[in-house]
Amino acid sequence: MLRDYVKAQKPEEDVLKLRLKEERARLSGFQMKIKEKKLPVMVIFEGWDAAGKGSVLGSIIKNIDPRFFQVATMDKPRTEEEQRYPFLYRYMVEIPEAGKFRFFDTCWMKEVTDGVLHGRIDGDGYSARTKSIAVIERQLSDNGYLVMKFFFHISRKEQKKRLEDLLAEKNTEWRVNEEDLWQNRHYDECMEVFDRYLNDTDLTCAPWYIIDAKDAKWAELQILQYLNQGIDTALKNSALAVPIRQNTFRLLQMPRLKDIPLDQTISDEKYEKELKKLQGELRDLHNEIYRKKIPVVIAYEGWDAAGKGGNIKRITGALDPRGYVVHPIASPEPHEKARHFLWRFWNRLPKTGHIAIFDRTWYGRVMVERLEGFCSENDWQRAYNEINEFEKELTDWGAVVIKFWVQIDSDTQLARFTDRQNTPEKQWKITDEDWRNREKWDLYEEAINEMLQKTNTSFAPWYVLESVDKRYARIKALKIVIERLKKACGKK
Amino acid sequence: MLRDYVKAQKPEEDVLKLRLKEERARLSGFQMKIKEKKLPVMVIFEGWDAAGKGSVLGSIIKNIDPRFFQVATMDKPRTEEEQRYPFLYRYMVEIPEAGKFRFFDTCWMKEVTDGVLHGRIDGDGYSARTKSIAVIERQLSDNGYLVMKFFFHISRKEQKKRLEDLLAEKNTEWRVNEEDLWQNRHYDECMEVFDRYLNDTDLTCAPWYIIDAKDAKWAELQILQYLNQGIDTALKNSALAVPIRQNTFRLLQMPRLKDIPLDQTISDEKYEKELKKLQGELRDLHNEIYRKKIPVVIAYEGWDAAGKGGNIKRITGALDPRGYVVHPIASPEPHEKARHFLWRFWNRLPKTGHIAIFDRTWYGRVMVERLEGFCSENDWQRAYNEINEFEKELTDWGAVVIKFWVQIDSDTQLARFTDRQNTPEKQWKITDEDWRNREKWDLYEEAINEMLQKTNTSFAPWYVLESVDKRYARIKALKIVIERLKKACGKK
Repeated sequence: MLRDYVKAQKPEEDVLKLRLKEERARLSGFQMKIKEKKLPVMVIFEGWDAAGKGSVLGSIIKNIDPRFFQVATMDKPRTEEEQRYPFLYRYMVEIPEAGKFRFFDTCWMKEVTDGVLHGRIDGDGYSARTKSIAVIERQLSDNGYLVMKFFFHISRKEQKKRLEDLLAEKNTEWRVNEEDLWQNRHYDECMEVFDRYLNDTDLTCAPWYIIDAKDAKWAELQILQYLNQGIDTALKNSALAVPIRQNTFRLLQMPRLKDIPLDQTISDEKYEKELKKLQGELRDLHNEIYRKKIPVVIAYEGWDAAGKGGNIKRITGALDPRGYVVHPIASPEPHEKARHFLWRFWNRLPKTGHIAIFDRTWYGRVMVERLEGFCSENDWQRAYNEINEFEKELTDWGAVVIKFWVQIDSDTQLARFTDRQNTPEKQWKITDEDWRNREKWDLYEEAINEMLQKTNTSFAPWYVLESVDKRYARIKALKIVIERLKKACGKK
Repeated sequence: MLRDYVKAQKPEEDVLKLRLKEERARLSGFQMKIKEKKLPVMVIFEGWDAAGKGSVLGSIIKNIDPRFFQVATMDKPRTEEEQRYPFLYRYMVEIPEAGKFRFFDTCWMKEVTDGVLHGRIDGDGYSARTKSIAVIERQLSDNGYLVMKFFFHISRKEQKKRLEDLLAEKNTEWRVNEEDLWQNRHYDECMEVFDRYLNDTDLTCAPWYIIDAKDAKWAELQILQYLNQGIDTALKNSALAVPIRQNTFRLLQMPRLKDIPLDQTISDEKYEKELKKLQGELRDLHNEIYRKKIPVVIAYEGWDAAGKGGNIKRITGALDPRGYVVHPIASPEPHEKARHFLWRFWNRLPKTGHIAIFDRTWYGRVMVERLEGFCSENDWQRAYNEINEFEKELTDWGAVVIKFWVQIDSDTQLARFTDRQNTPEKQWKITDEDWRNREKWDLYEEAINEMLQKTNTSFAPWYVLESVDKRYARIKALKIVIERLKKACGKK
């Protein structure tokens, strides 16, 4: 794309000024429509060093009220903290919420292409990252995001001149670093890497726009024209349905809920003994995964009153509080609802060596959100794949992902509900909503079966915890966590 | 994709039968909705030889009324006639019309992958063709087509068994050809080529679905599920707006209409002399392009009464009637309007060695269709790029594409209209519509200027014919055609 790029014809100065005025006003006018239609707009600026991204960005945001946009400056190396999260994490936490702009002053492209050019990323690393990027850009777009990607293009000669000008002034000298100069000396090599990246990520849903950046005003006009056009298009497509992609992940066999026997029990004596032994083992393993910097994600889903809370407690009872966090997941807050449904989970990922336990999870999308109509049919149908892609991203990063389905039968639930109702100190645990959900047991069971079938991937399988006897379920959970952590530590 | 492909879990026999019944009924139920919503559905079957495409196709179409579908069997070598058209031509003429299904029993994939495997297509040829395919699949999808692509997958062992079974029976022996056996012997090599193709054309707007084809009923169910899901999604998205892509073609400077001087004239004597000489030259060149098998497309656009007809006559006056055709282009017929707007032009392409002259063209999309609201804004904004891509396809194929804009001023048009009105034998040439269009002169001029700027590509540039003196314009047209044909024949 870049090698074949042909400069658009720059208009005469007076025409340029006039059009710039028009397009600025147009962008300004779009602000409220974007807000009304709840469109999240992600604008990515990439390009050659010294191509003027910053100054053009400065001009463009003048047309938008500060309440409606934010700038994410990503053109800096990862902090040590950021290095402990998955590749996409630092970008994902920055995605805009519905109705607002977020401008990225460089995004995932620069990190990848710089990595390739300076030998930090090899061929496999490049393929993995561009694949992750293509997946997430598609996911964002499928979830209603407008993703506009601009590449600022200048010639080798122009870049050289700019760098020299910057270096000549005491005031601006500091702006030029060794990598900028390296880039200019290796312009052709960079061109090749950039060109390949642009081709590899030129999605039909999120195409690249190459900007002739020699003249700042002209660059601004080009961007405004494409941006306004993109917004115009996106505003016309509210509630767009998109293709449901085929599953491409290895799925493991999963029994249907009704076929799972629930008569397992454990004696008091054996429970106490095993609990103590297993918690001791887990304690040691927690140290080990901390030292080995292995991130761990434990996800709990299950029927109301199935015993998730008590189960989690038996896990955390063995953990060092500095090394884990439990995230209770309720309905999303407005600022969470306004973003990609996985955003609030991206945001809660553990760093390397840490454990994050989710009490209810991203699977809400294909259970409660599906059944209560909180998202469209297309949304939840697409979500199985989006979730598998999310968990693949985590396991590729090196995380251990353990997913528990805590299973009871309908009679057991009724008994526990009734008990809660009748026991004053447990009454807070039972609400009208619980009873309403209970009425939809069969619909939930159908949705859960579909969910378990479609997301039981080889890299992030489900484990059923038979929890009619809660103690049995706790011991089983501990054993599974221990087994998975041992394996991750290369033991047995 | 293919190498990583994981078989979906085949349901038990009774569940399979039940679901098959449901999905068949669902497809059947979609027929009328597709018709109502005018959705064109293009279903592409590709895959291993002997994978059972034909028999599954046979089952699926049983659910659709014959009025609503057709099958295009493309799994046969190009006829000699077809070899004289561009690569995509034989497929493009087969695309479905709005509201109907068209099933392709193999499509452009097979021709490309077979070509690569048997050394008929080299690396550059592969890149060019996959690029053409990705462009046209995007164009179809952008123009409201549902494009569903299925790859029938079987193992080497299964394929071998099937081929042997076929060969063992006198009745079926003929079904196996040398290429099928070759494919089985070179299964891994084929796998690699298929896998690469699937990856290269897995568009976000038209993804691939890989079908486990070992069991015919199971294959049918998988296809029906994906197909019904795709239809369901597409029906939800009527009148979808899609991203306007950046121009990536080299554009040449084009003057604005108002800046073009129109005072050129030619004397009677000089006109007659030149006309005779130039027509003689063109006659000879027509023979030469016929021998050299060069296809030629000449496109005429211009104001009403600008003199297009007379101009064309002076060109055709020099041509052998067996080697050219003039296509007068009026409003599209219903069956043409029901397809991609370029379909009726794909359909009228000349074969190699022939000349097609278009009296009005595909540029109607960005003139009359734009101004009269016959298509959406997103449609005509996207059309500049779609047209450039179309003309690039033609010139890459080897065609000479000559585009004339026949220019007069508004006063000249008025004088000619009035003359037509007042001259009984010319009255048929002037209609109320001509007068109505004339009232929109300024809007047309703006649209035409934008069109000329955005489609004046280096490979298919516009030529302005100043036609206040029609004879001047005719001589100029002849000279341009001669110059372009000479160049194409490698002369001077």
